Amino acid sequence: MKVDRMQAFSDGVYAILITILVLDFNVPEYHVGNLLAALIKQWPTMFAYVVSFLYIGTVWLFHHDFFQTLKFTNTSLNVINLVMLFSVTLIDYPTALVSNSLIRGNVADMRVAFIYYDLVALFISLTFAWLYSYVRHHPELTQMKKDQQHFYQAIKFDPIRSVLIYGLAIVATFFSIWLGTFLLLAGIVYHFLAYLRLSKSMRHALKVSK
Amino acid sequence: MKVDRMQAFSDGVYAILITILVLDFNVPEYHVGNLLAALIKQWPTMFAYVVSFLYIGTVWLFHHDFFQTLKFTNTSLNVINLVMLFSVTLIDYPTALVSNSLIRGNVADMRVAFIYYDLVALFISLTFAWLYSYVRHHPELTQMKKDQQHFYQAIKFDPIRSVLIYGLAIVATFFSIWLGTFLLLAGIVYHFLAYLRLSKSMRHALKVSK
Amino acid sequence: MKVDRMQAFSDGVYAILITILVLDFNVPEYHVGNLLAALIKQWPTMFAYVVSFLYIGTVWLFHHDFFQTLKFTNTSLNVINLVMLFSVTLIDYPTALVSNSLIRGNVADMRVAFIYYDLVALFISLTFAWLYSYVRHHPELTQMKKDQQHFYQAIKFDPIRSVLIYGLAIVATFFSIWLGTFLLLAGIVYHFLAYLRLSKSMRHALKVSK
Amino acid sequence: MKVDRMQAFSDGVYAILITILVLDFNVPEYHVGNLLAALIKQWPTMFAYVVSFLYIGTVWLFHHDFFQTLKFTNTSLNVINLVMLFSVTLIDYPTALVSNSLIRGNVADMRVAFIYYDLVALFISLTFAWLYSYVRHHPELTQMKKDQQHFYQAIKFDPIRSVLIYGLAIVATFFSIWLGTFLLLAGIVYHFLAYLRLSKSMRHALKVSK
Repeated sequence: MKVDRMQAFSDGVYAILITILVLDFNVPEYHVGNLLAALIKQWPTMFAYVVSFLYIGTVWLFHHDFFQTLKFTNTSLNVINLVMLFSVTLIDYPTALVSNSLIRGNVADMRVAFIYYDLVALFISLTFAWLYSYVRHHPELTQMKKDQQHFYQAIKFDPIRSVLIYGLAIVATFFSIWLGTFLLLAGIVYHFLAYLRLSKSMRHALKVSK
Repeated sequence: MKVDRMQAFSDGVYAILITILVLDFNVPEYHVGNLLAALIKQWPTMFAYVVSFLYIGTVWLFHHDFFQTLKFTNTSLNVINLVMLFSVTLIDYPTALVSNSLIRGNVADMRVAFIYYDLVALFISLTFAWLYSYVRHHPELTQMKKDQQHFYQAIKFDPIRSVLIYGLAIVATFFSIWLGTFLLLAGIVYHFLAYLRLSKSMRHALKVSK
Repeated sequence: MKVDRMQAFSDGVYAILITILVLDFNVPEYHVGNLLAALIKQWPTMFAYVVSFLYIGTVWLFHHDFFQTLKFTNTSLNVINLVMLFSVTLIDYPTALVSNSLIRGNVADMRVAFIYYDLVALFISLTFAWLYSYVRHHPELTQMKKDQQHFYQAIKFDPIRSVLIYGLAIVATFFSIWLGTFLLLAGIVYHFLAYLRLSKSMRHALKVSK
Repeated sequence: MKVDRMQAFSDGVYAILITILVLDFNVPEYHVGNLLAALIKQWPTMFAYVVSFLYIGTVWLFHHDFFQTLKFTNTSLNVINLVMLFSVTLIDYPTALVSNSLIRGNVADMRVAFIYYDLVALFISLTFAWLYSYVRHHPELTQMKKDQQHFYQAIKFDPIRSVLIYGLAIVATFFSIWLGTFLLLAGIVYHFLAYLRLSKSMRHALKVSK
């Protein structure tokens, strides 16, 4: 099966998901004349929106670049991809929960919301670990011949590291919401940095294999 | 008419449908500090989401692989495809009903919700039967020449079998919700297995015809 | 500018619009044990959904086939296309109004909802009239050389006829909801028949011009 | 990285965003028989919808035409593009706020809603300024060789001018809602005119460089 159509379907899911995040913004109930105050109270919605937008955006860039290295896809890869898309779509709901619990301001609720978010992020990283591992064991699917080994050497620990960061974030959240939040944000920033590195080593690998 | 654009439009509908399923998750009404308990009560929403995501995902894979065997499309096939997309979009609503009735826990309501789901699944399978039958009688549309007969021999009973399974699920639901649910899930698993088989026999058929 | 990307954008809008129609289905408020009765009362939602799905589906087929005859697009055509997409997206809201007013059963409200629907349908047909007229006066944009004249001769009155039907439907609705509804449905069926004719004459025209 | 896929993803986001705007239309609460009066009161929703549809449509045309001039994309451009898409998706919420505050009719709330809209528009224009500036300093990414200098000379002040218009609109809104609204609309019309100019000078530049 050609990779193009699977990539197009996946791009579609990412594009829709990143856009419907905006539906989390709802006109608040406000007394006439007090819209500004009501909007300022909604800052957690904007915060959660920015974080999730950049998170999904980064995951998309990852997905997109990685699938560019593939020549073919097969049934197993299609299933792995579907599970990965499934994991990514889950992020929409904890985004709303984080925003809602921050607005209400109860620490126990925030803890629940952040851990939900962490768990989904951890799940997403696990599906990436699965994807990397599968493709590493099926080099016939990729366009990279010579540098294959070196390429995966460079990136293969990235998903595991992400899983560790999100695991730590979950544990930390039990002791301190703010430390947990910091680790969650660190995880997302780590994704972005890992993307820049993948992007670089991939361009190198593709150049060598051509 | 080229197949590409119809496939792109259909992929779009599938991608949107599978992604907006996530809108079924709504922040529950909860007393401050009780978010966890409120979320646990929402397990049916997650259950229904997982089932429908995998179901639509499998139907997409089916659709996608099958249309790869086509060379051209014509007006009739466009209309069949529209009806098929119509049938698939219907699954969103019974997904919400199943989730809602499981949360409320009334057996009569669950029965209604599951039968609604079964009926839509049955309808989807009927449109696949229609599609298979149409293409079998219009071999000029496909890329497969030699193996045509053998290929359809292998898969032509799949939609009928699905229709039977969902029909049985409807009947069973009147006697036992759990048996009905089991049959519904069995139907979806059957789709997935049938997809693996289609995928295999299609690759074979395309190889032979080249 | 190449036609491909504009067609892809338009296909995206159609795919999204036809799929989010499904968001009109909302779990009704119902007393535990009475889900079936509550669902049966929702029949107008299903009715409106079926009509609008088939309507948008037909308009998409039209759009799709027609743009296949084009070689290039220019700024004017982009603007006409945007206005056409605008007119089509408007159909979502009167669909909900028709469904809502039929459920409530007040004749005055139904009249308003149906006329709203008619007006949007009339607007859509007007944008098609504009499109046809523009392309007829810019034959350099199309792939059809020889048969150009004959082709537009065959279809040029279709949008005007649709406008007439929807205009009649509006007038009729003031006297009888049911006659108005009949004319509205007739208009949509007419679109479908006109599509079959366009599809046929287009294939002919493309064959001749090659 | 090829430009095609990034353009397809961006087109997807634009198509979804422009289509889900329609979800701002909600069946109003109305007394049986008074649907017409309730709909007429909703005129601001239609007003805001028309404005935002044309605004996003114009921004899409811009985006689309501009990316056509590129040969490659790189990691920086991907990030700029994500930020630009982020800025555009934000327009959905102030559209709802403008509509809501106009319906309620309180001047202080309208001021807040319009300034929110202005700020998002200003942010969008800033991301365009960033994009233009980046591409101007990386001529290796574009298809235009000879006319590069002249081309950017023609358009480089457009985003800055837009930023100025929206900045003025914000200031004006403090004194007069209607003057502010006028400037906001003027800004959107200016986008459209600037698009026509870009479109023209781009066609010229591409012709010369071929």
